[in-house]
Amino acid sequence: MMSSKEALSLKVDIDAAVQLLLKMKVDYKQVTGQDYKAGCPPVVGVVSIDNGSAVEEGDDQVDPWTVSTSNAKGVDYDKLIVRFGSSKIDQELVDRIARVTGKTPHHFLRRGIFFSHRDMHQILDAYEKQKSFYLYTGRGPSSEAMHVGHLIPFIFTKWLQDVFDVPLVIQLTDDEKYLWKDLSQEECHRYAVENAKDIIACGFDVNKTFIFSDMDYMGSSPSFYRNVVKIQKHVTFNQVKGIFGFTDSDCIGKISFPAIQAAPSFSNSFPQIFGDRKDVQCLIPCAIDQDPYFRMTRDVAPRIGYPKPALLHSTFFPALQGAQTKMSASDANSSIFLTDTPKQIKNKVNKHAFSGGKDTIEEHRKFGGNPDVDVSFMYLTFFLEDDEQLEKIRQDYSSGALLTGELKKCLIETLQPMITAHQEKRKLVTDETVKQFMSPRKLDFNY
Amino acid sequence: MMSSKEALSLKVDIDAAVQLLLKMKVDYKQVTGQDYKAGCPPVVGVVSIDNGSAVEEGDDQVDPWTVSTSNAKGVDYDKLIVRFGSSKIDQELVDRIARVTGKTPHHFLRRGIFFSHRDMHQILDAYEKQKSFYLYTGRGPSSEAMHVGHLIPFIFTKWLQDVFDVPLVIQLTDDEKYLWKDLSQEECHRYAVENAKDIIACGFDVNKTFIFSDMDYMGSSPSFYRNVVKIQKHVTFNQVKGIFGFTDSDCIGKISFPAIQAAPSFSNSFPQIFGDRKDVQCLIPCAIDQDPYFRMTRDVAPRIGYPKPALLHSTFFPALQGAQTKMSASDANSSIFLTDTPKQIKNKVNKHAFSGGKDTIEEHRKFGGNPDVDVSFMYLTFFLEDDEQLEKIRQDYSSGALLTGELKKCLIETLQPMITAHQEKRKLVTDETVKQFMSPRKLDFNY
Repeated sequence: MMSSKEALSLKVDIDAAVQLLLKMKVDYKQVTGQDYKAGCPPVVGVVSIDNGSAVEEGDDQVDPWTVSTSNAKGVDYDKLIVRFGSSKIDQELVDRIARVTGKTPHHFLRRGIFFSHRDMHQILDAYEKQKSFYLYTGRGPSSEAMHVGHLIPFIFTKWLQDVFDVPLVIQLTDDEKYLWKDLSQEECHRYAVENAKDIIACGFDVNKTFIFSDMDYMGSSPSFYRNVVKIQKHVTFNQVKGIFGFTDSDCIGKISFPAIQAAPSFSNSFPQIFGDRKDVQCLIPCAIDQDPYFRMTRDVAPRIGYPKPALLHSTFFPALQGAQTKMSASDANSSIFLTDTPKQIKNKVNKHAFSGGKDTIEEHRKFGGNPDVDVSFMYLTFFLEDDEQLEKIRQDYSSGALLTGELKKCLIETLQPMITAHQEKRKLVTDETVKQFMSPRKLDFNY
Repeated sequence: MMSSKEALSLKVDIDAAVQLLLKMKVDYKQVTGQDYKAGCPPVVGVVSIDNGSAVEEGDDQVDPWTVSTSNAKGVDYDKLIVRFGSSKIDQELVDRIARVTGKTPHHFLRRGIFFSHRDMHQILDAYEKQKSFYLYTGRGPSSEAMHVGHLIPFIFTKWLQDVFDVPLVIQLTDDEKYLWKDLSQEECHRYAVENAKDIIACGFDVNKTFIFSDMDYMGSSPSFYRNVVKIQKHVTFNQVKGIFGFTDSDCIGKISFPAIQAAPSFSNSFPQIFGDRKDVQCLIPCAIDQDPYFRMTRDVAPRIGYPKPALLHSTFFPALQGAQTKMSASDANSSIFLTDTPKQIKNKVNKHAFSGGKDTIEEHRKFGGNPDVDVSFMYLTFFLEDDEQLEKIRQDYSSGALLTGELKKCLIETLQPMITAHQEKRKLVTDETVKQFMSPRKLDFNY
């Protein structure tokens, strides 16, 4: 028989063992992204490749729903490249794009705003052998109001379309917004159509571009749905849990949605454009936070007999308040909206743009400002096309020759005509034009 | 310091505690259908209501993928009604259907083959006030070959359509079969079209019936997809886990599929038939194993502003080998197929139909046979329409006046002309006819 003291001591031992086991299970899950199951080793592919976004280094968090960092310069993109397993867009690649296209690379490429890629050399290898590709980008229409940051992928995609002369498909994920937000399907679809107008105003060629709302296109293309189901058959809940952090309490719509964002990466989702060709490679320009979707897509592609899509990743466009977070379409003061008046632009920049300048003019003249954390300067790197002028501003601001107010004035004078021009172009986009862009149809390419 | 013997003993204690903990977790999951999580009590609603199919009583297991029992008479349907929370189709309801329609109730109703319902009285209340409804049934096309058991819901649905004169939609879940089976999309779709021919041969009115393949219709109806997404937003992984027993290793296609089987329960999934009406109630005749899908549908319906579908549940059609299992389309000897020749029918019944007779003629004459476990007799309850003749066979077999060979002969003579007639009707179904039935279009009803 055991004494009561011995029994108590044993109980303590058992409790400790149980605590240890529970802790080990938690640790196991943190490390592998998977629930511990006796006798089942973790799936290595999922852990080391797909799980990139779930693992956090330092304070940066980057996934399709959250981008945050404690660094005023913004997310550490070099670390992100390592973590996501993508490749840096180096000078050699930029030079090669210049050589292959015979065009000066876009300033987004020259300035490292598009900074990371997957398989871009493969796209260029094929292109040099007259093997074409197509472009795919998209937007989640969560509100009517788009801000200047939302234009980045479209401005760049328009340039890519111009220099490579290839078909382009643009996905508006109104179904995603319905699933994630407290919005009706009608609202999400209306936002999709409104956003399409801003996208069209970027100057896309209607004969080379197909824009679609998921809620419309899924219901008008059996080929698209077949690819969605094909992808859904080849991705498990465990995998999307690892990649996107879904939980058992998430609705089944969210859980299966990644397949819908993946499907446009395959050319036979668009038989009206590519006929029955399933081998036309896809190049996706997007912000780096969308990469988890396409890591999943690239993982599935060879298993269903399709080529992996290539990617070009952009950095994030900073909020006026600083580069720590991505902007929010729901906070009117967090960015410059495409509907802002010249006066609103002036006020917002003057009032809200985080400054890298010193507290007093005297100190500023003496020590100079810090362009690396100055939001006005960051915005100029996005929108001021003249490299020399930008470099002069950087030097003058760093030396203290240029004051914060003067730097802000440069930005205001860059943004005001740009936004006004956008508004004028948008006004010319009629419902008829939108309908044209959004009709499934053959484009000016023969496949 | 601990002695090595003490340490060993402690280790044994700890191992025992760990084993205990692991076992408790397994038990917890078995009881609640949910993974154990410290501090999270089980979700009661899911367990007690939705989990019906996951909890097993006795040896019966009934869900969309497995039906099994150790009882030779088949599943205990009275227990199933209690477990699923449905209502028994009693004599009062059968009489009421006779009164409301002015027609003799189908022998499937008279003989308890359709034995359970949800909200059938509500359908009749509304019908008496000239408020119409529509019928929805379906089939998972997992092979080209259908057996006689597959006809049960269609034979009964055809009768319902005739006596109530209402629209009918028939879903062929080729996407489901692609997700669950090792089949290509092309095969599943071809099976859907082949199965449609057998369904059409049951005599449905083309002006009142719409047959659709999911892979086609999802891609041709934005309204259908919108309802699918609406349902997917209102069902969590936890819920489908509880209802269907999905696990984290299941593909996301399976996990989201239940919404696709749910969507036809809502009239605005078919705007070509019902215009923008979302309030036309749906009545679903189906085998009881499909109930989990519609328990989920009925749970979601009020939350998305739609009426709950009503249901009529049938028992299972027994395999030739006995009522313990559902038949399998992949075992040619487990049932009578719609493609069988008269000779094949004769051989199969004689060779494989489980007999409730005695071992010798002498014993049989003396003690009589047991029709309750005799598959030939069971098949006759499905297909021999004459009540008096059936009752006479039952009595004679029970008394021993009718021998097993004679009973089998009755069945053979019932099945042979029935299958031949089916084959002749199927031959008349042209590709053009199939196309007509499967084209989204207005039916002969005004909404």
